[in-house]
Amino acid sequence: MTVNVVFHVDETEKWELALANTHNLLTGIEAEGSQVEILVNGKAVEIFSSLDEKTLRTMKILFERGVKFFACLNSLKSHGIDEKALPGFFEVVPIGVLELTEKQLRGFAYIKP
Amino acid sequence: MTVNVVFHVDETEKWELALANTHNLLTGIEAEGSQVEILVNGKAVEIFSSLDEKTLRTMKILFERGVKFFACLNSLKSHGIDEKALPGFFEVVPIGVLELTEKQLRGFAYIKP
Amino acid sequence: MTVNVVFHVDETEKWELALANTHNLLTGIEAEGSQVEILVNGKAVEIFSSLDEKTLRTMKILFERGVKFFACLNSLKSHGIDEKALPGFFEVVPIGVLELTEKQLRGFAYIKP
Repeated sequence: MTVNVVFHVDETEKWELALANTHNLLTGIEAEGSQVEILVNGKAVEIFSSLDEKTLRTMKILFERGVKFFACLNSLKSHGIDEKALPGFFEVVPIGVLELTEKQLRGFAYIKP
Repeated sequence: MTVNVVFHVDETEKWELALANTHNLLTGIEAEGSQVEILVNGKAVEIFSSLDEKTLRTMKILFERGVKFFACLNSLKSHGIDEKALPGFFEVVPIGVLELTEKQLRGFAYIKP
Repeated sequence: MTVNVVFHVDETEKWELALANTHNLLTGIEAEGSQVEILVNGKAVEIFSSLDEKTLRTMKILFERGVKFFACLNSLKSHGIDEKALPGFFEVVPIGVLELTEKQLRGFAYIKP
């Protein structure tokens, strides 16, 4: 089956779970035609100040399998994170909660690990 | 754009983030025609036992910009909070999770900061 | 009114709140025609390693009132929980987040206590 779903991460300690959740989801859906996204805002953007190799590798694998990564610009600013610190596959959106809202209003499921 | 969205707050320490999220959302949408709500239940109602000036002021600003505030009566009772302790712009609903459910079934997005 | 809603539990300390939320919801809806589910994944499956009598009793009461309980097999495995440790009224699904996604795409509301 194909699905549209956005995962919401706003706590640093939830990154690992969110990435594992996303990985598990991918094993049960058809990549072709599905849209799976991870949106990070709030404190969870602090991960970019010292992104470890293992987390980056996991993110990359998910990205290569079609997962889209979004980061909230407001949150980056308020936590003093330079956009340049983000891996290149992250798209920066001005307002993270607007992205979460728009996607749901367009039929995406929402999951908050 | 206009949106319909309900924010869910059930942890006291998430109030600040939820209010900031809501403020940020408002900067990206058309107030006219949008419905933005904050529903508080669970432990997060304990904020009313000692609501600080800054939080109250932030809530008021959001309310004046059209945000609706709802509190769960069940949660108020189980945490020993008198309804009279709530700012006047809060509406009390009998069952918070029913409000969250109804709104989603009527097309609102759901965000849990 | 009738509703379709799925509660998501992935933190052990949220079980009590999730069960209370579900109980409260039931007092405001028509059981006939409603679908109320609780899906557990992540660390929250650790509850099954030492399920106390009170929690089990509360779950049973909800089950007898029509609530369906689902547990994520991936999470059971990664937390070393034997499926046999689960109360009989739990259904095991291969991928918890897929269950959460499918239900929302079929019109269920989502609540994360």
